[in-house]
Amino acid sequence: MRINEHFAKLPASYLFPEIGRRVRAYQAAHPDAQVIRLGIGDVTEPLAPAIVEAMHAAVDEMASRATFRGYGPEQGYDFLIEAIREHDYRERGVEIAAREIFVSDGSKCDSGNVQELFALGARVAVTDPVYPVYVDSNVMAGRTGPIGPDGRYAGLVYLVGNEANGFQPEPPAEPVDVVYLCSPNNPTGTVCTRAQLERWVTWARGAGAVILFDAAYESYIADPSLPHSIYEIPGARDCAIELRSFSKRAGFTGVRCAFMVVPEAVTGVDPAGAAVSLNALWARRHSTKFNGASYVVQRAAAAAYSPAGLEQTRGQIAFYMENARLLREGLGALGFTVFGGVHAPYLWLRTRDGATSWAFFDRLLETAQIVGTPGAGFGPAGEGYFRLSAFNSRANIEQALARIRRAFG
Amino acid sequence: MRINEHFAKLPASYLFPEIGRRVRAYQAAHPDAQVIRLGIGDVTEPLAPAIVEAMHAAVDEMASRATFRGYGPEQGYDFLIEAIREHDYRERGVEIAAREIFVSDGSKCDSGNVQELFALGARVAVTDPVYPVYVDSNVMAGRTGPIGPDGRYAGLVYLVGNEANGFQPEPPAEPVDVVYLCSPNNPTGTVCTRAQLERWVTWARGAGAVILFDAAYESYIADPSLPHSIYEIPGARDCAIELRSFSKRAGFTGVRCAFMVVPEAVTGVDPAGAAVSLNALWARRHSTKFNGASYVVQRAAAAAYSPAGLEQTRGQIAFYMENARLLREGLGALGFTVFGGVHAPYLWLRTRDGATSWAFFDRLLETAQIVGTPGAGFGPAGEGYFRLSAFNSRANIEQALARIRRAFG
Repeated sequence: MRINEHFAKLPASYLFPEIGRRVRAYQAAHPDAQVIRLGIGDVTEPLAPAIVEAMHAAVDEMASRATFRGYGPEQGYDFLIEAIREHDYRERGVEIAAREIFVSDGSKCDSGNVQELFALGARVAVTDPVYPVYVDSNVMAGRTGPIGPDGRYAGLVYLVGNEANGFQPEPPAEPVDVVYLCSPNNPTGTVCTRAQLERWVTWARGAGAVILFDAAYESYIADPSLPHSIYEIPGARDCAIELRSFSKRAGFTGVRCAFMVVPEAVTGVDPAGAAVSLNALWARRHSTKFNGASYVVQRAAAAAYSPAGLEQTRGQIAFYMENARLLREGLGALGFTVFGGVHAPYLWLRTRDGATSWAFFDRLLETAQIVGTPGAGFGPAGEGYFRLSAFNSRANIEQALARIRRAFG
Repeated sequence: MRINEHFAKLPASYLFPEIGRRVRAYQAAHPDAQVIRLGIGDVTEPLAPAIVEAMHAAVDEMASRATFRGYGPEQGYDFLIEAIREHDYRERGVEIAAREIFVSDGSKCDSGNVQELFALGARVAVTDPVYPVYVDSNVMAGRTGPIGPDGRYAGLVYLVGNEANGFQPEPPAEPVDVVYLCSPNNPTGTVCTRAQLERWVTWARGAGAVILFDAAYESYIADPSLPHSIYEIPGARDCAIELRSFSKRAGFTGVRCAFMVVPEAVTGVDPAGAAVSLNALWARRHSTKFNGASYVVQRAAAAAYSPAGLEQTRGQIAFYMENARLLREGLGALGFTVFGGVHAPYLWLRTRDGATSWAFFDRLLETAQIVGTPGAGFGPAGEGYFRLSAFNSRANIEQALARIRRAFG
């Protein structure tokens, strides 16, 4: 059997497995070390009581013939789609049709699968540093050449984020078909302003490009003047797909629910130059390769929008953001240059003494028993930087800061 | 944005939406009609008590900080993987390693995604009639040409099942890279014997091809001498991937859990002719585009293997298979030619009076208010046949038979 040869373009050692390997090696050598994990962005607070209650009720429905649910609607149940329309969009002045919302089992799947809509020859732009799934899924599909010695894949357009541009690169000058944006950003924790989003939308409409806007962290935005959805920008409904997730918004990393918004007005062009609705294409993709998210999970997600659910999940977010504030201020006081952590649960540090991000990873693990994520794992422009996540208990955050003080103070 | 032009090769009207359209039109014209749905293969019995109990316990774990679970292992939790290894494989004399099992949110996803492992130029064979996802996912990936007036996609190899071969076609004589097999079969309800599976394995090993063996309905096999897994055939570990699902085995159509087995010994070849492990490729795909199945769902799936869970879910399967027996014997007594329904919850009928399968669909809906699935929806060789599902209440099955007797007796 002839295999998909594009998988071989991916580096053999993937970011998170490599982190796991180094942590296991350290723990084997130091069995008593209490390692604090601020690496992957995984929530630690239990599910909110309103969500727990909704899940129990849904399980009971599945236990009775009269209320049992088999296959659900592939795009998601109305009760969840209506809650999304109301709370995520209408309350912010945005009208999204029910058929424009596609509920899924997770944003990692959505952001990996969405590239199936593009032509194999479509030119893809990503920011650098970037969430690796955007890149890797396009590599696996064959939309790039090999990776070069500079860590860049041939054929992919890199938009470099750096301290000079506040990790918010400008739209590309060269023609591209599609760009992945993430705001609040993973990994840098920075956020797009309204003016920046307006520039992106103006550019996309002028260029005939599509923006894939990953807003998985929108609920961490603290400044009420900042947009949560790209559709708050006039014209975005013509050129943008938005990805949302319950993972960080409601602590669903182990529950699995997300959604994607594909407005009917967003079109691409077929080889004859005719406009084709991406909503229709995604509906076909979704109904062919997906069979709906779990009923119990969709009830859980809907409960995150109930008055109690909103209050409880906002309390969790405030808790994590207090962790972020402690980390940001504590690291700042030690002389670290820190980005993010204000509208996002991630902090993006410049490493100390010009260390590479993997050297800094090893140093932080060895001197402070803290696991973070080397910036280089997010692309060449991440070299020299380091990501810390604010998802942990208060005690662990305080302990982590105390150790960093000892090691770097 | 240049779109994936291959989506346009798919016919505009997809099977199940077209069925839905016709049923809605009928119900609008006959608001009092009590339509009985034997169309899609969706379970109707509530979840087994052992599964309900496990889900409640898992929800409670998620409600407490000490037992909360965030991101799980991408391949699935050990407690589920070990239950699969023991009950699905070791009890049948098959040893499968933990790292060869990939838990997912459903077999529709797995069977749609697995083609990402093949080269774009790989030659794919399907049986005809066939579960449409195998075909459509390859069409969308660009692995076929356009559909012809005969209903066949250029470049795809069709292995015709018919009454002469008992809907079990022989392996292809021409070279192919990969073949999709489904046994017990959806839609025909027929099952591969051990001798037939041995022929497939011998062929695949000789041809260097890979078999994608979809065993989603294995738990409906009644004859203890029939294999449930392709790995019961010596040599299959070198050439076969197996797909399993909890949807029909434990009533999980609305719960969403499945798994795929990719033995480490199954290899493909890269463009240089070197052997590449499909397990390594799938592990990379799974960890890049998937983030694990829901924890509560995996606990539910594991409960289907407990002593109580096994007894209860076997009781459900026996209930559905009694429905299948009633349908098979009832239709047989009316002179219908019926296949399947012995080792599978599907019956495959020859239509009456040489009607096309869509004409028979309309006739059954209008004269007996019964919804089934036209065989032509499963491929050109399904024309003249019709699928009925045994998933329904006993009362509805009996009512359906009484109506068919009135209409065709």
